[in-house]
Amino acid sequence: MLHSTIQKKDYRLNPFHPIIKNNRTKKVKNVIVLIGDGMGFSYTTGLRYFNHDSQKGFMNPTIFDQYFVGSQSTYSLDTESNITDSAAAGTALSTGYKTYNGALGVNMDKQVVPTVLEYAKFRGKSTGLVGTSQINHATLAAFAAHNESRDQYDQIADDYLDEQIEGKHKIDVMLGGGTSYFCRKDRNLIEEFVKNQFGYVTNLQELVTNKNEKLIGLFAPIELPKQIDRDPSVPSLPQMTKAALQRLQQNPNGFFLLVEGSQIDWAGHDNDIVGVMSELKDFEAAFQEAIHFASNREDTIVIATADHSTGGMSIDRNDNYKWNPSVIKSITSTPFVMATRLHETKDMTTLRQHMDVTLQEEDVKTIQSTLEMEVEDTRQALINIINHYSSTGWTTKGHTGEDVPIYAFGLNRHLFSGRMENSEIAKILFQIID
Amino acid sequence: MLHSTIQKKDYRLNPFHPIIKNNRTKKVKNVIVLIGDGMGFSYTTGLRYFNHDSQKGFMNPTIFDQYFVGSQSTYSLDTESNITDSAAAGTALSTGYKTYNGALGVNMDKQVVPTVLEYAKFRGKSTGLVGTSQINHATLAAFAAHNESRDQYDQIADDYLDEQIEGKHKIDVMLGGGTSYFCRKDRNLIEEFVKNQFGYVTNLQELVTNKNEKLIGLFAPIELPKQIDRDPSVPSLPQMTKAALQRLQQNPNGFFLLVEGSQIDWAGHDNDIVGVMSELKDFEAAFQEAIHFASNREDTIVIATADHSTGGMSIDRNDNYKWNPSVIKSITSTPFVMATRLHETKDMTTLRQHMDVTLQEEDVKTIQSTLEMEVEDTRQALINIINHYSSTGWTTKGHTGEDVPIYAFGLNRHLFSGRMENSEIAKILFQIID
Repeated sequence: MLHSTIQKKDYRLNPFHPIIKNNRTKKVKNVIVLIGDGMGFSYTTGLRYFNHDSQKGFMNPTIFDQYFVGSQSTYSLDTESNITDSAAAGTALSTGYKTYNGALGVNMDKQVVPTVLEYAKFRGKSTGLVGTSQINHATLAAFAAHNESRDQYDQIADDYLDEQIEGKHKIDVMLGGGTSYFCRKDRNLIEEFVKNQFGYVTNLQELVTNKNEKLIGLFAPIELPKQIDRDPSVPSLPQMTKAALQRLQQNPNGFFLLVEGSQIDWAGHDNDIVGVMSELKDFEAAFQEAIHFASNREDTIVIATADHSTGGMSIDRNDNYKWNPSVIKSITSTPFVMATRLHETKDMTTLRQHMDVTLQEEDVKTIQSTLEMEVEDTRQALINIINHYSSTGWTTKGHTGEDVPIYAFGLNRHLFSGRMENSEIAKILFQIID
Repeated sequence: MLHSTIQKKDYRLNPFHPIIKNNRTKKVKNVIVLIGDGMGFSYTTGLRYFNHDSQKGFMNPTIFDQYFVGSQSTYSLDTESNITDSAAAGTALSTGYKTYNGALGVNMDKQVVPTVLEYAKFRGKSTGLVGTSQINHATLAAFAAHNESRDQYDQIADDYLDEQIEGKHKIDVMLGGGTSYFCRKDRNLIEEFVKNQFGYVTNLQELVTNKNEKLIGLFAPIELPKQIDRDPSVPSLPQMTKAALQRLQQNPNGFFLLVEGSQIDWAGHDNDIVGVMSELKDFEAAFQEAIHFASNREDTIVIATADHSTGGMSIDRNDNYKWNPSVIKSITSTPFVMATRLHETKDMTTLRQHMDVTLQEEDVKTIQSTLEMEVEDTRQALINIINHYSSTGWTTKGHTGEDVPIYAFGLNRHLFSGRMENSEIAKILFQIID
């Protein structure tokens, strides 16, 4: 609820001194930033192994590989922690300011600092936020809200409606989860959005048929189901990305779109490699959708990166020298859905419908013993077994500090090459947004 | 012992079709390749944290950060394993052929394939091998020998003397460890090298005073002590690099030099973060030495990369959100040296001379209980405690599969940007070596 302190002047001027002095630099009309939350190098390398059909031969490059240009350092300026959270990393990526963990769009002094999304809106562009978490969650919110704490979900949702720039709504297209925060007892933001000429959709069918240029689409109370578990009525990340692009490109001044693969990180926190690959595939397809839009144009930059890595995930563990993505590929639901189903049926044979892995007797016993306990216990047992059979390593249920990759396509992609601080990405964007 | 099958024609032609068709590409006179064995992204990021003096504020870029250009995929074509070993990765980097694990300078069909070092020698250049392992160990050997198995240390040592290209010795400067393999009961290669006009040195003093252009320097029976444990009479990696460059640059046709930070990987296998940082600092200084040589010249390319990552090392573990390099900095010997000293003295207070960490009573008890066991047990206890206090995560005592960084400086550095296969590095080198 810091929006009252944002003044017009904050957006009028690029907050940073010119850092690019290169004749090759041109202003861009359209900016698409994709953030794979938690997507460190072991994740995108793992995706290449996963996409590869065989244990043998050369692996095809992923779409990420083709556009790899650089890496960025993720640490925040938190005085208690030298490993970032998503809010501080999101704020660095959106404002150019490294800050403390938990901060959204405010600097170390808790002062509001403008985001690249807001700057784009000030420059007359349309703006969009697309993700698979609730749309007021940390990374997405870091581009469109200002709050001393990421935990103020209701305030952040309110700000998405209330805050205006030059008399216009800050965000034109919002797609993801979060009805719990937008249809509250104390305030129904959806009704207000609709009164303000926004369309509102709640499933894929409505999303593809709706023609409103301004749109809010909420497809779950909080987060969307993971891609592998998703009902066909729930849009995928590429479908949401496409729907956003269709609308945003109608603005002759261009647009800024943020797309987040929100739950790559969440699966990493769970040390759930099935969830990780599910969400990476969804994010990969969204990146492909963005590249598709930007191809054959000369006015668009597409950047995909991560805010940090999660879980200390490693491709192989315990001296096995063989990572087994085929185990992961044979599984058709997240461990959570499998565990829920097992608790409903109390029948171990239902596991066969979800995973084509020949389990040892002791594994079966371990899972069975959890059926008298909580669903979470069964889920954890399944996660452990899948990590064992796939030989996936983890060191934490939190984040880790290693640098993360930057992928770029289109106009000015060369500016994102080499190693940089996460905050430099925003600084470059402020420079090149037309 | 495959050298009899190498024929002159193998070196006469670049084995690959031109892959670079770019007017900006110029032929290089001097090539310096540095391989940090096992040095994945978490290692070079960890070095930045380690170099940083404080838990707060912006971190200075490392010398690696300044020259980061790309990344490479390390997997081999082994039919049993999709995680590479150092021999297969070294062979990909040296020959352009991905091969099976254990292979040195031979392809999947066990056929000899020429290395970039050999090609440089064929082109009239001088050549050098510098490392902190025995100089006939996998990564170094992959550039200068051909063997179906990396384990044939004696054969590889013999080949360093016996194999010639165009009537000249293949390697002009060899510096590292390995007297056990070069002064054997069945053959004294040192004597033969000296008869063949090589100088021979065994300590730093001799290294800096010797003026021989061709030189073999062996400073340990097998590997050198780790940098942190090294006696001042044993040269550091930058000192060996400098000594090699002084000699190699005397050839008007230029040179090829390989420098390996061999024991970054070994410390990773031990999950020993003190050893990792010790060897990374040594390697960082060697890279600095190579950059220093190449600065203000327009004829030299310097590439630093890794063959794979090791140990699944992560910056932070167990949801701590605070990695503590200060713990590592306060330690002045490897756990091996500390454990050895403790077993000599049986006196826990000697630990104080080696580590300035306030241990909990239970830690002291744990270490003390190992003093009746083997040195290795004490070392392992110390490693576990240091990993706990520094919050360093590990998932394996073997290698892991994630992509590794490429750093480059000098002529043609742009060719190494983006994501590539490890084998492409050799293909590019074959193209640009004058």
